[in-house]
Amino acid sequence: MIELSLVGIGTGNPEHLTRAAIRALNDADLILLPRKGSQKAELLELRRLVCADILTRPVTLAEFDLPVRSASGEYLGGVRDWHAAIAQAWAAQITAHLPQGGRVALMVWGDPSLYDSSLRIAARLGAGGMALRVSVVPGITSLSALTAAHGVALNTLGAPVMITTGRQLRDGGWPAGVDSVAVMLDAGSAFEVLDAQGVHIWWGAYLSMPQQVLVAGPLADVGARITALRADLRAEHGWIMDIYLLRR
Amino acid sequence: MIELSLVGIGTGNPEHLTRAAIRALNDADLILLPRKGSQKAELLELRRLVCADILTRPVTLAEFDLPVRSASGEYLGGVRDWHAAIAQAWAAQITAHLPQGGRVALMVWGDPSLYDSSLRIAARLGAGGMALRVSVVPGITSLSALTAAHGVALNTLGAPVMITTGRQLRDGGWPAGVDSVAVMLDAGSAFEVLDAQGVHIWWGAYLSMPQQVLVAGPLADVGARITALRADLRAEHGWIMDIYLLRR
Ligand SMILES: C[S@@+](CC[C@H](N)C(=O)[O-])C[C@H]1O[C@@H](n2cnc3c(N)ncnc32)[C@H](O)[C@@H]1O
Ligand SMILES: C[S@@+](CC[C@H](N)C(=O)[O-])C[C@H]1O[C@@H](n2cnc3c(N)ncnc32)[C@H](O)[C@@H]1O
Repeated sequence: MIELSLVGIGTGNPEHLTRAAIRALNDADLILLPRKGSQKAELLELRRLVCADILTRPVTLAEFDLPVRSASGEYLGGVRDWHAAIAQAWAAQITAHLPQGGRVALMVWGDPSLYDSSLRIAARLGAGGMALRVSVVPGITSLSALTAAHGVALNTLGAPVMITTGRQLRDGGWPAGVDSVAVMLDAGSAFEVLDAQGVHIWWGAYLSMPQQVLVAGPLADVGARITALRADLRAEHGWIMDIYLLRR
Repeated sequence: MIELSLVGIGTGNPEHLTRAAIRALNDADLILLPRKGSQKAELLELRRLVCADILTRPVTLAEFDLPVRSASGEYLGGVRDWHAAIAQAWAAQITAHLPQGGRVALMVWGDPSLYDSSLRIAARLGAGGMALRVSVVPGITSLSALTAAHGVALNTLGAPVMITTGRQLRDGGWPAGVDSVAVMLDAGSAFEVLDAQGVHIWWGAYLSMPQQVLVAGPLADVGARITALRADLRAEHGWIMDIYLLRR
């Protein structure tokens, strides 16, 4: 039997780790440390540092390369194939290191429930025949990191909030029925498609990390600045993660 | 100068506290512990236990009664008056204990950005003339506690999620443009207004607390059971906090 714990680690600051997360990592027999390509080497290094910092007993760390998503073909089918390949890569590490079973932990960026595929990949492992029990340790999301950094609430009094992606915003415009919209996974300033009039934006990149950058203001005033800044930051660091809250 | 730290403490499990939260509470000169009426005495007790558990230096704990919201009059105006009265109650404690200024911490349930008025009340303190710097320490939300307990993702692949309240769902029905809806602050089974056909629900009460209860399944099958269970639990414990995710 394999007990797999998906451990939310927050969004870049080791201080985001909860006591439950620290305990789950220390209780593991094996911690999986997938490598996602050179661009995000920093994020792997951060996970290594977290381990060095919080482990109080020796736990085996298994570093391995993740398969790369095929850029060709239909999008959802491509993602499915990719998840299947990742499940195989996890399974290979787990059976190599824990042939008799045991406890495995995976550090998940932010919270495992939010735009993360670890739960779906774990379900594939179970469906693939591994005797598996999955548990989740919740983590600080990038939404909370964004609102905390700006000192702003996600919602207005009693009102709803939409959490969406850059792609959805670009394709669908401002979602119906809400005045607050949080946008994640934006490959580049999807807010440009909106009528900026009367819209306020709170934007953050590299939240909770040493290179954190924040911009807030009326979208009409700061939108172009964010787009330019995003391009500069991306060029400077080689990668970027950003998120924003829009309110009208 | 008063430095006020709004510290997210998660949703009932002291293990939800992050290292940053523990640090912020230990760095405070004063921790405000508002009493919200007998119904939630348990939640005050939990905050006392958190302090006893994590404080490694003596910090003044100021327990005080919060003003009660007037049930009469217009809703939004009533909330505004109530927030003003709470701001006054905070100010009275702060000036009594820290006449020379200092660091104040307030433990906020879950994350301070999500359906919580502490940020708005703090803004009133500042507007009321107190020299104030506010910071936020993000916390585990009840959304993350819910999805972790069920081992379910908040969103489906690349799709948006609506976070809303029981009142909104009851008044407006299923929100446009989303297949995943998370409902908080529901005074009682607002999902009853929906066509249950093809809808799945993941429901949780007292999440992360010893009395945690979970129900999941097709809404058509488990909806009535949740409504009955909710009434029973509320009678048994004298209060209830519940949240659910709907997906169609
Ligand atoms: C694959 S999703 C993972 C989200 C994560 N599970 C969470 O709870 O925040 C990645 C997206 O999260 C957001 N994000 C995550 N960490 C961030 C950070 N430190 N700063 C800014 N945005 C971040 C960005 O929108 C990014 O495109
Ligand atoms: C005033 S809001 C505060 C939310 C909090 N700031 C957060 O981040 O979760 C209270 C609502 O949160 C949800 N909630 C908070 N704690 C909960 C718990 N332990 N179990 C179930 N629901 C909870 C319920 O929907 C409740 O009506």
